[in-house]
Amino acid sequence: MTTMRRQLAAEARFGAEKAAKVDLFRGTGLFVGLNCFEPGQAQAVHAHAGADKFYFLASGKARMVVGDETFEAAAGDVVWAPADVPHGVAEALERTVMLVGIAPPPR
Amino acid sequence: MTTMRRQLAAEARFGAEKAAKVDLFRGTGLFVGLNCFEPGQAQAVHAHAGADKFYFLASGKARMVVGDETFEAAAGDVVWAPADVPHGVAEALERTVMLVGIAPPPR
Repeated sequence: MTTMRRQLAAEARFGAEKAAKVDLFRGTGLFVGLNCFEPGQAQAVHAHAGADKFYFLASGKARMVVGDETFEAAAGDVVWAPADVPHGVAEALERTVMLVGIAPPPR
Repeated sequence: MTTMRRQLAAEARFGAEKAAKVDLFRGTGLFVGLNCFEPGQAQAVHAHAGADKFYFLASGKARMVVGDETFEAAAGDVVWAPADVPHGVAEALERTVMLVGIAPPPR
């Protein structure tokens, strides 16, 4: 058994009230976790001061916002939100699991 | 058309001679790209000084090395290699596509 591997399907959690977050790994340079959405759930547009972020849609489909762009992303898509650029999830169009990374890690 | 989204399946590249790397996004804090393996291909064990790294297996299966641990990882697994810890891919057991992130980004 290694502690260096996590299975996405086993870690995903969903909330009836709002989108769920799961912490997977945190180091000095990088944080990696999950953002899990039921259909219709959202993540308010926000920005990380000085930190880059990516989302990888492992499953599902969502309407995403980065800067002044709004677009649909689906399973297999990587979405990039550069440091200080506002980003969020306008609406999950299906049950959606996103792997996310933020660097440097949030406090 | 947004420039903030890349489709993994469209970006993956494979090399007959050795594993292929694809750069996707690079910021001040984070680099994100792909490592693509044909069955039997490997990535030599190496370490990133001061930088954390993750692999996410989008498809396939591989024997991975992190520190003194060797284990199999399959599609849907996140593998964590903390800063300064040697890691690599001993052998891809299938055609395998890994999303990887390194923070801070390599020069």
